[in-house]
Amino acid sequence: MKAVGIIAEYNPFHNGHAYHIQKAKELTNADLAVVVMSGNFVQRGEPAILDKWERTKLALAAGADLVVELPVFYAVQPGHLFAAGAIQILQALGVKDLVFGSEHPEVDFLDLAKQALTIEIEGQFTDRTQTYASAYAQQLEEQTGFKMEDPNDILAFSYAKAVVASGQEMQLHPIGRLEASYHDQTFEEGQTIASASSIRLALHKGKFEKIKPVVSDQAFEALSTKPTALAFEKPFFELLRYRLLTDTVGQLGQVYQMAEGLEHRLAGVAAAVEGPQSYQSFIKSVKTKRYTFARIQRTLLYTLLNIKVDQMQAAMADSYIRLLGFNDLGQAYLSEVKRTVTLPIISRVDMSLAKANLRLDYKAGQMWQILAGQTHAKQGQDVGRKPIYQGQE
Amino acid sequence: MKAVGIIAEYNPFHNGHAYHIQKAKELTNADLAVVVMSGNFVQRGEPAILDKWERTKLALAAGADLVVELPVFYAVQPGHLFAAGAIQILQALGVKDLVFGSEHPEVDFLDLAKQALTIEIEGQFTDRTQTYASAYAQQLEEQTGFKMEDPNDILAFSYAKAVVASGQEMQLHPIGRLEASYHDQTFEEGQTIASASSIRLALHKGKFEKIKPVVSDQAFEALSTKPTALAFEKPFFELLRYRLLTDTVGQLGQVYQMAEGLEHRLAGVAAAVEGPQSYQSFIKSVKTKRYTFARIQRTLLYTLLNIKVDQMQAAMADSYIRLLGFNDLGQAYLSEVKRTVTLPIISRVDMSLAKANLRLDYKAGQMWQILAGQTHAKQGQDVGRKPIYQGQE
Repeated sequence: MKAVGIIAEYNPFHNGHAYHIQKAKELTNADLAVVVMSGNFVQRGEPAILDKWERTKLALAAGADLVVELPVFYAVQPGHLFAAGAIQILQALGVKDLVFGSEHPEVDFLDLAKQALTIEIEGQFTDRTQTYASAYAQQLEEQTGFKMEDPNDILAFSYAKAVVASGQEMQLHPIGRLEASYHDQTFEEGQTIASASSIRLALHKGKFEKIKPVVSDQAFEALSTKPTALAFEKPFFELLRYRLLTDTVGQLGQVYQMAEGLEHRLAGVAAAVEGPQSYQSFIKSVKTKRYTFARIQRTLLYTLLNIKVDQMQAAMADSYIRLLGFNDLGQAYLSEVKRTVTLPIISRVDMSLAKANLRLDYKAGQMWQILAGQTHAKQGQDVGRKPIYQGQE
Repeated sequence: MKAVGIIAEYNPFHNGHAYHIQKAKELTNADLAVVVMSGNFVQRGEPAILDKWERTKLALAAGADLVVELPVFYAVQPGHLFAAGAIQILQALGVKDLVFGSEHPEVDFLDLAKQALTIEIEGQFTDRTQTYASAYAQQLEEQTGFKMEDPNDILAFSYAKAVVASGQEMQLHPIGRLEASYHDQTFEEGQTIASASSIRLALHKGKFEKIKPVVSDQAFEALSTKPTALAFEKPFFELLRYRLLTDTVGQLGQVYQMAEGLEHRLAGVAAAVEGPQSYQSFIKSVKTKRYTFARIQRTLLYTLLNIKVDQMQAAMADSYIRLLGFNDLGQAYLSEVKRTVTLPIISRVDMSLAKANLRLDYKAGQMWQILAGQTHAKQGQDVGRKPIYQGQE
């Protein structure tokens, strides 16, 4: 069977995602679509609006055949690690084609990635007024003439670099975006495709009705009736501030990606009398030009989850394929590749696994529930959950 | 000048406490009363209802002349350490007389403490169905014939042991309790003296009017209008649960007094789906016969405050005299003893002190404000605060 791979967050799942799944199958003539989806937290360091199970259901309903989780230790990372973690899982599953959106689908990203192999930034990265990413993009443009500035191009390039680094064969199929561009913050009446960020914005403003045309009925139903993490900022900030007030600066300094004395700034701002009153204003107080907003938010999430450098590194070195859901095709594919997969497949999680390899995802799931107001949920996100099976109708 | 010492929590300050201050001065013919008062947390591991500044004002108004803080690293401890920390401060201030309540004021506690010096419990403490305290009391009774079972007697005995251990002279003056006994949970109309625990109970039930006859007008006013930590259990449990879910068992195991694998039980109960929904039921879930309720609550407070063994030990070895308030007499006494005090006197706290020696009290003050719902208070508990001066009227 031929599988095409998709890497996604589905935050939330919308019509553009459904189109992408269909298009991916057509374009590669694949029998099925394998989706690697971020779990309960997304790359920006925020909780996904719906939990991973709800999003899996929506993806299966829209044509995905197998959905596996991108573990939190890869999902909440800078682009190159996010890409590396996702590509590793797809390759472990024997997937040889990847379809993704790009602002420049005519570009040969693999070729670009090979040309970029000689770029060295670390040593030159002394200008404290720009981020690493922009320093890198500048170098890339000087070397290849390609101006990498659009968000999907950046991700596409990260996928390509991860494929090159893996030494394994994988065909990359960039496809152009439809009506909506990634950055669009608004959408108009009559549109049926809108960007995830414009949908999130509408949801944050409480304009639920507005999103009806751009998501499936099932997605609308889930967003209207299931627990969501839309109001996560208040509990997030309360718990974060508590941690910043009670951990020593030495303890905070061990958090993953806590660099250049950021822990001192965080602790200082948190302790200030009449300090920031909201998560947004807190981030603004601690942000410098050196870091992107997303990078700061990720670091704050690592702090909230208390993920230390050594734990993150150990987890990344020990990834797995966590099954979230499948239909008959997905199940058949799993049987076919079972003997050749190169990462452990995890179908059900028990308490001993939750305390070992799956520790960070388990913790992230508990945190998602707290941030979604499910302080004492009747069901956890991991232990005892089995993959969603979507049988034929 | 002759000073008499009092060790107190004043949680809350009531008529019995006012009587005690007057009686202490009379009994010892003292010129002034020096009170060592727990700061923002009390020995049971709970936040004091009113913060340390409000309680200081009430004590000064009722006849105390100098109020100093018992730092959190001594205030929230088993009786023998609580006593040792308080006695150390009084002795450092040159106080040679201590007045305290006792159910058996006829007993010579110093003599009892000397007789008890030979009691060895550690080795024999293998019966897991009784607490250390009850094993000790049993030994004491066998050896001296005195049955130590009443709460004030137990504290009195701890004071005596601390005095004996200090090698310094201090006269102990036990006085009988008035109408109310320590354990009384209720009081009747017409009573003007009630136990602190019965007053707390009335306050927890929202029966504010009921306490009017047993506290001063000023105390009633403070309890009715100032921020209180009466509703601390909900935020306490939320933050505690968050910490138990996010710290590793290894990190939890370093918390002060986390013994015999308690960290595993705490983490397990916190993570349980459909686990305890309130702080009280959580404590019941983790408590064993081996530990008193207060011991568990203290350990949970250390966990909430993230106080590790080494931090606690370093803090206890480096105590200080933190001035909370005084009147002219107290100020004159301070001038008189200034050259002979044996601990540093701290009058005002700046940020560097808050990050160094006063770190634990500073953290406790921030936590008190969070638990009292003052998440973003206009004024902290420590930095920039100066002792309350109560001038002559």
